[in-house]
Amino acid sequence: MCGIAGVWNVKDAFSVLHDVLLGLQHRGQESVGVVVDGFKTIKGKGLVDTVLTEDRWEDAEKGIGHVRYSTAGSLEDIQPIVAFTRKGRLAIAHNGNIPNGEKWIEMLKEKGAVFQSSLDSEVFLHLISMSEGDLKESIVKALKKVPLAYSLLILHEEFLAAARDPYGVRPLFYGKYGDGIVVASEDAALKAIGVEDIEEVPSGTVVFFSNKGTETVRFSKKEKRFCSFEFIYFARPDSHFLDQSVHIARYRMGEELYRENPIEADVVVPVLDSGLSGAMGFSSASGIPLDIGLMRNRYVGRSFIMPVDREKIVKKKLVPIEDVVSGKRVVVIDDSIVRGTTMGIIVKILREAGAKEVHVGIHSPPVRFPCFYGIDTARKKELVAGERAVEEVKKIVNADSLFYLSLEGLKRAIGRSELCVACFSGEYLHE
Amino acid sequence: MCGIAGVWNVKDAFSVLHDVLLGLQHRGQESVGVVVDGFKTIKGKGLVDTVLTEDRWEDAEKGIGHVRYSTAGSLEDIQPIVAFTRKGRLAIAHNGNIPNGEKWIEMLKEKGAVFQSSLDSEVFLHLISMSEGDLKESIVKALKKVPLAYSLLILHEEFLAAARDPYGVRPLFYGKYGDGIVVASEDAALKAIGVEDIEEVPSGTVVFFSNKGTETVRFSKKEKRFCSFEFIYFARPDSHFLDQSVHIARYRMGEELYRENPIEADVVVPVLDSGLSGAMGFSSASGIPLDIGLMRNRYVGRSFIMPVDREKIVKKKLVPIEDVVSGKRVVVIDDSIVRGTTMGIIVKILREAGAKEVHVGIHSPPVRFPCFYGIDTARKKELVAGERAVEEVKKIVNADSLFYLSLEGLKRAIGRSELCVACFSGEYLHE
Amino acid sequence: MCGIAGVWNVKDAFSVLHDVLLGLQHRGQESVGVVVDGFKTIKGKGLVDTVLTEDRWEDAEKGIGHVRYSTAGSLEDIQPIVAFTRKGRLAIAHNGNIPNGEKWIEMLKEKGAVFQSSLDSEVFLHLISMSEGDLKESIVKALKKVPLAYSLLILHEEFLAAARDPYGVRPLFYGKYGDGIVVASEDAALKAIGVEDIEEVPSGTVVFFSNKGTETVRFSKKEKRFCSFEFIYFARPDSHFLDQSVHIARYRMGEELYRENPIEADVVVPVLDSGLSGAMGFSSASGIPLDIGLMRNRYVGRSFIMPVDREKIVKKKLVPIEDVVSGKRVVVIDDSIVRGTTMGIIVKILREAGAKEVHVGIHSPPVRFPCFYGIDTARKKELVAGERAVEEVKKIVNADSLFYLSLEGLKRAIGRSELCVACFSGEYLHE
Amino acid sequence: MCGIAGVWNVKDAFSVLHDVLLGLQHRGQESVGVVVDGFKTIKGKGLVDTVLTEDRWEDAEKGIGHVRYSTAGSLEDIQPIVAFTRKGRLAIAHNGNIPNGEKWIEMLKEKGAVFQSSLDSEVFLHLISMSEGDLKESIVKALKKVPLAYSLLILHEEFLAAARDPYGVRPLFYGKYGDGIVVASEDAALKAIGVEDIEEVPSGTVVFFSNKGTETVRFSKKEKRFCSFEFIYFARPDSHFLDQSVHIARYRMGEELYRENPIEADVVVPVLDSGLSGAMGFSSASGIPLDIGLMRNRYVGRSFIMPVDREKIVKKKLVPIEDVVSGKRVVVIDDSIVRGTTMGIIVKILREAGAKEVHVGIHSPPVRFPCFYGIDTARKKELVAGERAVEEVKKIVNADSLFYLSLEGLKRAIGRSELCVACFSGEYLHE
Repeated sequence: MCGIAGVWNVKDAFSVLHDVLLGLQHRGQESVGVVVDGFKTIKGKGLVDTVLTEDRWEDAEKGIGHVRYSTAGSLEDIQPIVAFTRKGRLAIAHNGNIPNGEKWIEMLKEKGAVFQSSLDSEVFLHLISMSEGDLKESIVKALKKVPLAYSLLILHEEFLAAARDPYGVRPLFYGKYGDGIVVASEDAALKAIGVEDIEEVPSGTVVFFSNKGTETVRFSKKEKRFCSFEFIYFARPDSHFLDQSVHIARYRMGEELYRENPIEADVVVPVLDSGLSGAMGFSSASGIPLDIGLMRNRYVGRSFIMPVDREKIVKKKLVPIEDVVSGKRVVVIDDSIVRGTTMGIIVKILREAGAKEVHVGIHSPPVRFPCFYGIDTARKKELVAGERAVEEVKKIVNADSLFYLSLEGLKRAIGRSELCVACFSGEYLHE
Repeated sequence: MCGIAGVWNVKDAFSVLHDVLLGLQHRGQESVGVVVDGFKTIKGKGLVDTVLTEDRWEDAEKGIGHVRYSTAGSLEDIQPIVAFTRKGRLAIAHNGNIPNGEKWIEMLKEKGAVFQSSLDSEVFLHLISMSEGDLKESIVKALKKVPLAYSLLILHEEFLAAARDPYGVRPLFYGKYGDGIVVASEDAALKAIGVEDIEEVPSGTVVFFSNKGTETVRFSKKEKRFCSFEFIYFARPDSHFLDQSVHIARYRMGEELYRENPIEADVVVPVLDSGLSGAMGFSSASGIPLDIGLMRNRYVGRSFIMPVDREKIVKKKLVPIEDVVSGKRVVVIDDSIVRGTTMGIIVKILREAGAKEVHVGIHSPPVRFPCFYGIDTARKKELVAGERAVEEVKKIVNADSLFYLSLEGLKRAIGRSELCVACFSGEYLHE
Repeated sequence: MCGIAGVWNVKDAFSVLHDVLLGLQHRGQESVGVVVDGFKTIKGKGLVDTVLTEDRWEDAEKGIGHVRYSTAGSLEDIQPIVAFTRKGRLAIAHNGNIPNGEKWIEMLKEKGAVFQSSLDSEVFLHLISMSEGDLKESIVKALKKVPLAYSLLILHEEFLAAARDPYGVRPLFYGKYGDGIVVASEDAALKAIGVEDIEEVPSGTVVFFSNKGTETVRFSKKEKRFCSFEFIYFARPDSHFLDQSVHIARYRMGEELYRENPIEADVVVPVLDSGLSGAMGFSSASGIPLDIGLMRNRYVGRSFIMPVDREKIVKKKLVPIEDVVSGKRVVVIDDSIVRGTTMGIIVKILREAGAKEVHVGIHSPPVRFPCFYGIDTARKKELVAGERAVEEVKKIVNADSLFYLSLEGLKRAIGRSELCVACFSGEYLHE
Repeated sequence: MCGIAGVWNVKDAFSVLHDVLLGLQHRGQESVGVVVDGFKTIKGKGLVDTVLTEDRWEDAEKGIGHVRYSTAGSLEDIQPIVAFTRKGRLAIAHNGNIPNGEKWIEMLKEKGAVFQSSLDSEVFLHLISMSEGDLKESIVKALKKVPLAYSLLILHEEFLAAARDPYGVRPLFYGKYGDGIVVASEDAALKAIGVEDIEEVPSGTVVFFSNKGTETVRFSKKEKRFCSFEFIYFARPDSHFLDQSVHIARYRMGEELYRENPIEADVVVPVLDSGLSGAMGFSSASGIPLDIGLMRNRYVGRSFIMPVDREKIVKKKLVPIEDVVSGKRVVVIDDSIVRGTTMGIIVKILREAGAKEVHVGIHSPPVRFPCFYGIDTARKKELVAGERAVEEVKKIVNADSLFYLSLEGLKRAIGRSELCVACFSGEYLHE
């Protein structure tokens, strides 16, 4: 789970990168890095505004940046990765994961490659450096070798390359900004700063932006399979994928959820912020009033004083408004359940606040399979629905009832078919 | 606009203060300060989690803290203020403002007083130091002299004093935590960490918490006049004042707003986060569906790269979801309008996103008079409704219609009469 | 032990203050503070170059600064002290100590004064604020009340005042710099940046520098008594007091020391850096060659990893060069012995490095009495020579012989009689 | 110009590395880096005590560290370099330079190598990774390929390797510390923390320290050629190379300098600190008294406020004591002249302070050729004596006379013949 951004031929590139990364901050809050002209680099743990405070380079005109979610890893694992090769100096920023990435790394090391990080993202650098031909050819050759999943930015002195894997699993957009180009994981981050003529980087394609113009190379013709979880949870509500609004898709997931699971209740309570769009759809379809039964304290973050006790953390973040839920039959709506721990605590909080019944509605199917393509790989283990029936999960979270959206319902809500749903169905894109 | 917190006889007081201040962070994001046992002090500009990261004192058992909104002022103006007096070493944290504070300060300086800050809060310290009698007596004498507005915490080696002015304009609560006591501006910040038996500090009263027990001194018997703006905007939705839920009050303000101003529209759009509760009430009363037409990017803050151009800032923070508003008659709901600038930009954003009509509903009366009791004194000038009719304000923000809640409607919604409404009516509590 | 600096009407005052304080860094390495135009303030623990790195105010034209030695005290005890009084806003920087300072502080508190620090330096502020008359008159009245010891700088919007106590115990100099004035504790710090026409602030005198010119007020006519320890140890070798070079004075102390204590030895080893000047004089007078038997590692400082074990610290700082001392009769020369601990370790180090004999020569008399006038009051206790004969001290440091300079020898070496020698004789200047 | 340190099987390895690097701080003040168990890394610009303040790893038992002189280069060029290879994870710290390092780097890149830095030090990593055989064999193979100049530390999970190039140009020592081993560039840094049984790593040799014991591999049998500049200037006076004391060698250089250049003068003035040992020898041989005519302000460093004007910098650092030099014939003694700028300013300072004559004695031969083996390569250009006769240099620095030590005199003073003197003679060790 990451966000990437790039700029080419843009005045005050450092500020623009800052602003775009701020618009992608929801995709990763653990670390930030940017590399600009002359490969000047800032990296650090924390939020965009915390890390990108100093050492502004006012004359920068190009650069790439990265925000990362993963809590693991040390300083050398913060992207972009910068390297010196016979094809010149390069920096790369990567969103996605390569399935069996360790095998790729081992194979390259066997050939004598020296890695500077433990990231599978570095695989691209070594494949490029080892390929024959000029740099652009080498990039295309490297991309052809790695099946998925990547949205990738490569900065070189003479160009910025934006590439997307053959399935287009992870998002990538670009548009015009003055005389230059800005690239980002989501269109909403581009719109927010006034980028125009926004387009998707097509799947299986690399676009080279240089002072000579734009060059597009399609290197694969697989069928598109865009990550459905971006629609369900990960992306900003104001973003669009496959020409579909994320918020509208979530709203419809809520509507479909009620249609598949008609239920009687007094109040619909969203788990803020991820469940809000879906809860609105659920409320609209059911006629059950929506209310804020759980307030979110937005200042509670990754504090050093955070108790290890997860229940205490959640209780500081999500505070019940008793006047809303007391004595009521409550339907809590959230986008998904992964481990189940948080939902268990939410049910408990609502019961302690006096809710008479607590029903849990999830506007996506049960997550039964790990994602190998870039959605938090830490989720591989301990999926609460991994090998359990819904009824068992209901008992674990201690809800009066628990209901999910069906896979068909999900597809209807999104209204598009070119989706990767491997985490629900187990039908992976790779072998 | 500030929040204050205090602890007495509590294990790991520094962490508890941190957590309570985090729960009050919405009351002030500009600076934080804490003082604990032995008058060890940390102060800094920024958020609680930014400032209170180092120098933890694990053996602290008592202390006070302060979060401040005001952007003006330098380091010496960050509270708590610590001082050495003949009555011992003291630290104070103050929420509120003393009307004509400069006159008080001048009067004390004339007597030879040396001030360490430019804060009117320091007036209390000098009044205490100059009073005859022991420390507690001196505190009571000092409090009697200053008419309003203050919720005040005073830390001494032997006690923690929590005081509230004769009108109880600003809030203050306390409760039990283990064998000790925790005090905070809002009950929700106490509840979030598990404080029990929560009570209000009565108006015109000071409570001394010490190892010998709790001592309550009522020093004034004026009638209560609690700030209505805490209900409308400033406080957390999950807080309670005068035994009334803030969220419920806001929800009812939205309901009353519709009743007073029935209107036809396609969608109710809240200005997040302040307008959400009221928008829900408005949608419920009107039957017009609520939707997220303006997403809020929560990571956009006080960035160093922030353009001076206010429109650009607002556009990064509040992003329209075109699919929600395009072609629709939109009612935007917010809690209040102060200068009018932001609302003008919001209307513009919605129109640019394709809204057919933009109506603006405000769930409080027009702010016509400056507040001298602690709500952002910078608001004194440039109140858009200060000397303008509603019709004029409507033109300024360029809305198709603009409607406010009446003062009676506000009181009905809150359901309590002991309110200060000076900013709406001009009937001040002081002469 | 402190250093103070001030500038008036000087371009880029912040940089000039920085440079002058750097030239006074030897007088205090624990904390630094500066206050410039508009009372902008930077304070911090550490060296000048560590603290004065940010927040440069390029348009500052006046200001005062302070470096402090004392390891005790918290942030509020870092000077300059800034205060708001009826006579205006003031900042003060003080070098020296007021004997019975606590009594002064208590007396002022009894009158209702509120102190912001635990420093006796703040006494001046309250005396000024409580005095009748305009600000300058009040300053003179305040100075008249406090007998000693102070070199004092007071910054006001309209002037910079530089004052010295009736005895002139602590040093203070000023001179021309462009169209303005720079003041500092030592002339060498002024010379190093090119200040011209350097003069001493006379004892019992305050000089007001303003845009209207220079005004000198003599408020006392006591006889001068300048601190002899500044000559012996504290000041820079390239400074001058009473028109006498510090280095030359120390060199002569070394010569006198040999004349009073002729001894046979193979090598003279200075304790770097304080003993170098004296060791040169001793070597010159005796004909015994000078050599570096103890190297000083200049990077060993106040590291966090410093062992509590004092012997280990000294051994990292002072490393023997065995080839110089092995098999030799060594005379170690230092300026003074206070507690005796370090000298004991030095003798041990030299013996372990193979020295056949270790003789210790001190180019000042035994320190038998505490200083109340500003030389490290921590030294009050545990003066090794406080109640011991020289023979006993010799045993404690385990030297083959130990010899001091006589008080008469010291005076001969300095060549001036207006000295305070209370730490040697017990004849204090105050009652 | 760098210093390196390593520890193996030592309790609190982080603190020990800190202390040893502090003892090598004179070898590089620009940046510091350490890597310990688990390849935890801290790197930063600045002094040891500035960088190694946080993130202590109390359970570390092994590690390597590096201090660097070079002002050029960015964060990725701070050593140690950490890498992931098929032979495991490695960290290296390198003192020295590889002549024609760029050719080595190009050659490796041609083979597809991806470099993470611009340092020639990284060459070793790629040679190791590309070699056949196990890790130790690969290290030996790599070392055999690179002719010079290196003292090298390699940290692996299972061992610490300490290697020295075939000529032993750069120093490297190790000894016992408890049950473990400490390695450092100079013996004095080991002695200062109590390391015992100190030995040189022989030239052309790599020593592997592991939990199974110590394994020594001699991989070259060239004749030793130790850097004479370490004796003249670079090393600590209390260090030893080739069993010869650095201080004694410098003292003798001063003696030889006088013998070769008898001169009449009134006072010998050392350029502190580098010229002190030699000045003592010169004074002793000549009978001309030594005195501190130029004080060094030790706090003047790399301040942000430093004027670009080099004369102003030198004048703040080196302050004349007029009473010592005024009216005198002064002989200034320094270790070497590189660009000549500083010496020109020193002569000017002394003349301005009243010196009647200023003679300059340098206790090493003229530096006529650049060093390719690790002494500040920035010195390549602008060597004042590069293509000038001594007489010309004399005019440039404006001395009354200028005299150098002969190459033979230098060798006599050091008393050893296994020296590299390429910078004086142009006889390089590589082709």
